[in-house]
Amino acid sequence: MGRRVAVYRSAHFNAAHRLNVPQWSEEENQKFFGLCNNRNYHGHNYDIVVRVEGEVDEVTGYLIDMKVLKDIMENEIIEAFDHKNLNLDVDDFKELNPTAENIVWVCWKKIKQKLDPKLDLSVRLYETPRNFVEFNG
Amino acid sequence: MGRRVAVYRSAHFNAAHRLNVPQWSEEENQKFFGLCNNRNYHGHNYDIVVRVEGEVDEVTGYLIDMKVLKDIMENEIIEAFDHKNLNLDVDDFKELNPTAENIVWVCWKKIKQKLDPKLDLSVRLYETPRNFVEFNG
Amino acid sequence: MGRRVAVYRSAHFNAAHRLNVPQWSEEENQKFFGLCNNRNYHGHNYDIVVRVEGEVDEVTGYLIDMKVLKDIMENEIIEAFDHKNLNLDVDDFKELNPTAENIVWVCWKKIKQKLDPKLDLSVRLYETPRNFVEFNG
Amino acid sequence: MGRRVAVYRSAHFNAAHRLNVPQWSEEENQKFFGLCNNRNYHGHNYDIVVRVEGEVDEVTGYLIDMKVLKDIMENEIIEAFDHKNLNLDVDDFKELNPTAENIVWVCWKKIKQKLDPKLDLSVRLYETPRNFVEFNG
Amino acid sequence: MGRRVAVYRSAHFNAAHRLNVPQWSEEENQKFFGLCNNRNYHGHNYDIVVRVEGEVDEVTGYLIDMKVLKDIMENEIIEAFDHKNLNLDVDDFKELNPTAENIVWVCWKKIKQKLDPKLDLSVRLYETPRNFVEFNG
Amino acid sequence: MGRRVAVYRSAHFNAAHRLNVPQWSEEENQKFFGLCNNRNYHGHNYDIVVRVEGEVDEVTGYLIDMKVLKDIMENEIIEAFDHKNLNLDVDDFKELNPTAENIVWVCWKKIKQKLDPKLDLSVRLYETPRNFVEFNG
Repeated sequence: MGRRVAVYRSAHFNAAHRLNVPQWSEEENQKFFGLCNNRNYHGHNYDIVVRVEGEVDEVTGYLIDMKVLKDIMENEIIEAFDHKNLNLDVDDFKELNPTAENIVWVCWKKIKQKLDPKLDLSVRLYETPRNFVEFNG
Repeated sequence: MGRRVAVYRSAHFNAAHRLNVPQWSEEENQKFFGLCNNRNYHGHNYDIVVRVEGEVDEVTGYLIDMKVLKDIMENEIIEAFDHKNLNLDVDDFKELNPTAENIVWVCWKKIKQKLDPKLDLSVRLYETPRNFVEFNG
Repeated sequence: MGRRVAVYRSAHFNAAHRLNVPQWSEEENQKFFGLCNNRNYHGHNYDIVVRVEGEVDEVTGYLIDMKVLKDIMENEIIEAFDHKNLNLDVDDFKELNPTAENIVWVCWKKIKQKLDPKLDLSVRLYETPRNFVEFNG
Repeated sequence: MGRRVAVYRSAHFNAAHRLNVPQWSEEENQKFFGLCNNRNYHGHNYDIVVRVEGEVDEVTGYLIDMKVLKDIMENEIIEAFDHKNLNLDVDDFKELNPTAENIVWVCWKKIKQKLDPKLDLSVRLYETPRNFVEFNG
Repeated sequence: MGRRVAVYRSAHFNAAHRLNVPQWSEEENQKFFGLCNNRNYHGHNYDIVVRVEGEVDEVTGYLIDMKVLKDIMENEIIEAFDHKNLNLDVDDFKELNPTAENIVWVCWKKIKQKLDPKLDLSVRLYETPRNFVEFNG
Repeated sequence: MGRRVAVYRSAHFNAAHRLNVPQWSEEENQKFFGLCNNRNYHGHNYDIVVRVEGEVDEVTGYLIDMKVLKDIMENEIIEAFDHKNLNLDVDDFKELNPTAENIVWVCWKKIKQKLDPKLDLSVRLYETPRNFVEFNG
């Protein structure tokens, strides 16, 4: 088996969201989610860091062409989420609460289906520089 | 005259906003503000850095007690803007487009009125790590 | 089994310390620990990043309420270490050399006992932006 | 007159300190300086950024050789303050409270006397990434 | 006169360069520029931060459309310098030593000629996170 | 078995490189590597973060003396790569394309042979803050 390496690439998008569980009452939501439940939304500069692991190509010395990975991130994530309201503008969150835990899962699925299946994928999402999440599949 | 020094302190808030000029048509707004005009809002992690300049107190070696400055920023800025929709939840932007240039001006005025008038004030606001603005009064 | 995710949260504290092995002579300590052995102490801005892993709650989309995690870190770590002399003011280091390797272990134990036992815990501690350590239990 | 430019260079040191005014009572000091008055000291990773402004040399394209500036910072600041207790180990603070405002002033004086007098000097000192000060002479 | 504000925008480019004064001997260059004189070049990730100051437009709340500023930076700087050898590939440095002091001056001139003359321009260039320069015109 | 911990330390070097596969035609290289194939080279500020894992020494509280790790990184990596042209000045890349994936592998091997074999080693290399790679052996 060849030499395994991981490559990482980051991108960013700005979006509005609110946290809310539709089957709960307004009081339950406010108590549980606090300020994040604001019905008029708040927002973040999200930073996404994608990790792809696999065997290096011995001729090129590449695991994956970073331009290919950049384009996948641009088309699947930035195009879909940047300058959007996650609750109102993005179908993935019509029935899924846009917590960081759920956003990173949606990002992982969108990127995974465009990647060579031989490659392992992990995605980290920074909601703020102090709060972030990671999903490894 | 005593020795002059500047002290800086930073804080952060997360907010939603959209850019829009009410007296313009929807088409004019979309053309001019692009993605930032999204009627459903988008959002940012705003970082604010306050600069206060004046003469150091010779006994304490302080220009201003950082806890005092922190409390002013907490009460005037974070309390007012954090987890808010700037267009809908904040009176200052009812008739003022919440561009970074206007937000930093509003921040400056809110902090200025709580500061000792002998102190010079400058405020920098990061809308993203790549885009930021500064107002010196 | 449900979908597993990791969430991270950071905090910071400022503390003084010195590295010293009591059963060694002063010469041995100075030779081994160098500047870090300064009998009058030196100090750091410590940054701690806590990683909690487990299954996401399907209703809320949360692994753990970040406010709960923030409070644990505040009560167990910041309250105990911030603006303290680790050697003199903190019982955990009365007989334990406050190296980064030992501090991160103490932090891990303090947080672990307050966490739901179903959750996996990892703690990273930055002594400086260039030197940091990690303990996974 | 030639073309003016400013060059900046950063360095860092780790030190312990406490804030205290000797002519005040213990109660007055504790009330005024709070946690920063801890008699056992606390500490910081200080970052210093030096700004030197003047006319570029037309032959070399240098304002000042960065290695020269680096050596001045190393000899005057890092050598004097790194891994030290500012109150106990540094003569400059024997009778001067080591607030950030006073430390940056001492740094400015130490560097100024080693610089070509034609060059303007400004010094910024980060006590934490959130609290910093600046002295321009 | 209207309200004045400054807006900043950053971008980055990767380039190779060497420092060398053609009218000097090889020995003089090696002695003066040290490692930076390596005849085979070395390189940097340059970060450029542009500061534009002027009066805010009262209708839009913009000083300058950030997309306009971004395009100027893209066309004048990134297009010209990214993934280039500054000494060999860029006409501006055919007879000008590509020190940070000279690069920032060239950047300033390229941007200045594309900006509305009413606007004040300042450019900061980071050669590394520790070494940077600024030119204000 | 003793308590396991990981320590990390970072360093940085500035270098020029180009990506090129000698057995390919010029057209194939330009098509595949794009701007990175520039025959006159481009460059980066590389940041390397070394992770060493093993059992903490119960007496000293150290996994490894950071000064020892710093010296290994200085001697094996910085000395070899800083202010160099990776393709022309470094033997390791005479026949190996200096992609980030290959550079991190070379760094890993150079450090591994100087480390106590009981210690596990992982190396991360940042080519830019947005693109980085990791090799775990």
